[in-house]
This record gives sequence, C-alpha cells and structure tokens, in this order.
Amino acid sequence: MNDNRKEIIRLLRQSEGNPVSGQDIGEKLGISRAMVWKYVRNLRKEGYDIRSSPKTGYILDAYPDRIDPDELKAILKTSLIGTDVRYYSDLESTNNTAREIATRSPEGTVVIAETQRKGRGRMGTEWQSIPGGIWLSLILKPSVPLDNVSKITLVAGIAVTNTLRNAGIDARIKWPNDVLVRGRKICGILTEVSAEVEKVDYVILGIGINANVKLVDFREDIRLNSTSISNEIGKVINRTAFIASLLYELEQQYIMFKTRKFTDIIDEWINLSDTIGKEVKIKTPNKLIEGKAVGITENGAIVVLDRNNERQEIIAGNCRYRN
Amino acid sequence: MNDNRKEIIRLLRQSEGNPVSGQDIGEKLGISRAMVWKYVRNLRKEGYDIRSSPKTGYILDAYPDRIDPDELKAILKTSLIGTDVRYYSDLESTNNTAREIATRSPEGTVVIAETQRKGRGRMGTEWQSIPGGIWLSLILKPSVPLDNVSKITLVAGIAVTNTLRNAGIDARIKWPNDVLVRGRKICGILTEVSAEVEKVDYVILGIGINANVKLVDFREDIRLNSTSISNEIGKVINRTAFIASLLYELEQQYIMFKTRKFTDIIDEWINLSDTIGKEVKIKTPNKLIEGKAVGITENGAIVVLDRNNERQEIIAGNCRYRN
Repeated sequence: MNDNRKEIIRLLRQSEGNPVSGQDIGEKLGISRAMVWKYVRNLRKEGYDIRSSPKTGYILDAYPDRIDPDELKAILKTSLIGTDVRYYSDLESTNNTAREIATRSPEGTVVIAETQRKGRGRMGTEWQSIPGGIWLSLILKPSVPLDNVSKITLVAGIAVTNTLRNAGIDARIKWPNDVLVRGRKICGILTEVSAEVEKVDYVILGIGINANVKLVDFREDIRLNSTSISNEIGKVINRTAFIASLLYELEQQYIMFKTRKFTDIIDEWINLSDTIGKEVKIKTPNKLIEGKAVGITENGAIVVLDRNNERQEIIAGNCRYRN
Repeated sequence: MNDNRKEIIRLLRQSEGNPVSGQDIGEKLGISRAMVWKYVRNLRKEGYDIRSSPKTGYILDAYPDRIDPDELKAILKTSLIGTDVRYYSDLESTNNTAREIATRSPEGTVVIAETQRKGRGRMGTEWQSIPGGIWLSLILKPSVPLDNVSKITLVAGIAVTNTLRNAGIDARIKWPNDVLVRGRKICGILTEVSAEVEKVDYVILGIGINANVKLVDFREDIRLNSTSISNEIGKVINRTAFIASLLYELEQQYIMFKTRKFTDIIDEWINLSDTIGKEVKIKTPNKLIEGKAVGITENGAIVVLDRNNERQEIIAGNCRYRN
C-alpha cells in the first residue's frame, strides 16, 4: 500500500509538470485506474496539489514541504552519521527521544521530527520549533573522557556553519553555541551527555535550524533576533538535501575531532566565530563580566580581557555584545 | 502490622540480652500473647535469633546484619544528603536505579541496596557486591557547568577516606577513584553524570564499600587486592551508623565543594593520596606512561613526570604502581 503511494509520488515528480495518465501509472504498479484515483485523492488530503484532466492525466503542481527519510537515506554519503534515521511527524523534543533510545541505538543514529511540541534550548530555555525548520538530534558514542564533550560541541558548531556557508549563507558562530547570520540567530545547538568521568556513554547533539521558517511565524520577542535560510536566500530549500549535506559535514568534523590536534579545531572555530574580537557582556550565575573576547580554551570556555586587562575564562553564561 | 514488628525488635534490643515477657510486649502493643508469639516466629525466619523460655520471656541473642533505613533516618545529622533514603533488599545496581529516578527525585536522595546483582565498576567493569558491604548511590544536582564533575568525584574520595579514618582505618586514595588500606582496595567510587555542557542535570555518586565483607567470599583474583572494614578492625561494624557518618561527611565536603577554593580541595586530596609520589605505570587506550606521579589538575587528571622528565597529564587510565 505504502509503496504504491510512494511510487505514484515518484512518477509524478519525475515527469516534472508533464501529465502522467492514470492508465500508465496503473500499469506500472499493477493496479486499476480506479485504485490510482483513490491514491490521488488521499495524496491531495496530505497536501499534494495534483491536477487531473480526463484526457491527459495527472499533474503534480506542488507538494508539501516535508522531509523525506527514504530520499535522505538514498542520497546520504556518510558511513557512520545517519546509519539509522528515525523520522517522526511530531515529537515532544528530538533530544528527549534520542536520550530515550540512546543506550540501545547504534552510534550515528539521527532522530528527526517535522515539528516539536516542546523544543528545548540551552539551560532549560524554550526553543520555538516552527514548521519548516530542521529539528534533529544525533547520537554519538565516542570513547573519550568526559572533558572532551565541549570539544564535540565546538566541532558541531563548525559543521553547521560550514554547511550553511556551502549553501551561500554568511553564517558565523556566536559563543557558546548559536549560529548567526547578519547578527540574527539561524541555528542553536544543545549538547547533552551521559557519562562516567573517564568515559562518555553517549552524547546527544541537538541541532535546530530555522530552514524554511517564515519570520512572521516567530513570536514577536524572538522574531527580531532571528532569521531563516529561506529568508536569507529568498527561496524555500530542499530540507532533505540540506540534512544530507549537514550529516556529511558532521561526519567529516567528527572524524577530524578524533584525529586532529585540538589547537587546529580551535583555530577553525575562531575563524568562523562572530564573537572573538568583539566587546562582550557575559552574565553568569555569580557575576557579570565585561570586556573583549579574545579566544577560547580547550574546554570551550571563552577568554575575555576585562577592564583591568585581566584574563577571565568563562565556561558558561549568557553572552551579549556591547554596542 | 509492620509497626508491631519494628516495636518488638526495638523492645528486645533495648533490653540488651535480658528477657522480656510476652505479656509485657503484648500489653505495650495492645495485642495478645499469641500474636506476639506469631511475630517472634516470623522474626526467627528473617534471621533474628530469639530465645524463648516460658518462665522469663524472650531474649534476642543475635540479629541479622542488615541496614536499617528507619534507624538511619533517625540518626542522620544532615540537612541535604539523605533527605530521601530508598532502601532495597536487592537491586541490579544502585547506580542504575538512581539514574532511573534521578530526574523526579530531590537532590540528596540516596539509594541503598543490601545486595547488587550487577554492581558496576569504572568503565564498564564488574564490581563484586558481596553481602555485608555498603552499596549506595547518591543523587546530586549542583547547578554548575559540566567541567566541575571531576571535582565532585575528588571530593567524594575525600569524604569516604575521612569517614574510614574516623573509624580508625588508615585509608588512602588511589588515583583516580579507589580507596585503599595497606595497598588493598576497600572502596570504589563510580561517578556518572547527565548534563548539558553548561549545566549539570544530575550527578550519581556510586559508592561501594567492603564493610562487613568476608575476604573468603571474594573471587580469588579479587581477594588478594581487597580488604574490608571488618577485616581491618577485627569486628563487624554497624553499617547503619557508618552510612550515617559517611553521608554526614559527604554533606560537609559537598558544601565545601561549592564554597571552597579548588586548590584547597586538591591539597586535601593530595594529602590523603596513596598515589602521589609513587612510581606509576598508567595504561590509556592510546599509550602507556611510566614515571612519577607528582600531582593532579583541576580536571582530576594525574600529573606524571615521565622518563624524559616531561610533564604528562592523564585524565583517564588504568594505574598500577611500579615496584
């Protein structure tokens, strides 16, 4: 049943706007024209805009913007990241689901959801997950000590930024873990870990990208500081293809994380950084630090030269730029 | 029902070997002598050695060596650690249970099991949990960044060692996380964490102490390198009282972890250390480092001066002493 549905979509998309007759489809699938018609009616309900003329056949004018996990598996060029793709129409949060399945899932498993009901940002904040975005979580199981985890986060920031840059978007990383375009947030990364001190059990890399999100759909307080890929390049992207590129880039960076000197990774991060060199104001639970961001440490801490020209390393906090 | 059982035990223990008549017990509890006799028979089945003489009454000669969670709650002098004590006769692993309940449990919750079927040591090794030991896991929820977790482990090592020393045992810490007496293991600590990079969700401190364990019960390969409290001091200890002291010491150290300069904690750790100053051989997944252990870093890494007098920091590995 489901295969017929997919095959009909494939035939209609393949003909690129030219009509395909119900007879042809029926013959290829070994089903009756009436049955083809039944499928078409169901597809229309799903949001597929299919014209039909009794003389020429069916024409696919538009299809819903959905991630296609089968297509993704077909075009994926990785050997580890994406070995197992779990696609859901709707989840509470991809990170929550990834955590639930992590222990019994192979490394490289990716959880993707079309929509999230309770998307989470860093430190318990809400993440507005509007339809059209890319909401995914990646399960990694590096056998490294706990203190390597922040490196994985840095490396993930590099991977997302590179993928966006390859798509023609001038993305930069804002410390600790956001990706910005023209100063507006296009992506957030939430890294969660389960570990012993000496050995990581698993890392969940939650990546949220405002891909085909319309800015009007954002809540007002978020809208001003946000942007999306479609907003930046002026057209809707193929999210399935974008995810394939992203997972490929993540795999490249993950391999490098395991083999490369960490100073090289830091150099690349600084190169892509939006924060280094800027005057910043960082709020931690205990204090407020103002000064110039001059670098990051191996632990992912930002290094700030404060007013007294003293070097401060801050591992976690809310960073704002001073103007 | 259960209260009567406890009250009978209390009355018998209170009389310290002197007989207590069934009539007296019955009157105090408002139950018949026949009912008292029924309770006594059940207690005998549980391992309570209760003599009875028709003329004088019941005498408690011996009671099973079990941890008493009610007694523990009564004598506990802490305000955070042990707020909630979950006592089980048998668990797969106290760390596993603690992880399962961590999110919905208050900070300070302690999971205690009389026996563990699948006790775990560091890095997936087996931990032989013989009856008579102390197997417990503590749930902590410090709101600190991830890189603070190894400090909590160091602090836990200090707490266990201090508690053993207060009990008259010359305990010392072997890097990274064992406690030794005369070179033999008496305690192991397994720290597990669930966290974001910027904020710890919860830490599980699994502490296994060979308290009243008989050395003959150890598997041969473990026996030679192990000892127990009862073996060291020549008598069985009251495990309930020992746990109360341990939780008190853990609370003191946990408060200090939050307020004290970390260099002070390192100094105390080094003071109690069995490893610093020794010639060591440390095996990591990538290499073997031989040299003299000279210190530890803020991340809990051991500092070794190798043959070329070069400083090596090792965060995780298997440490053996060279002789």
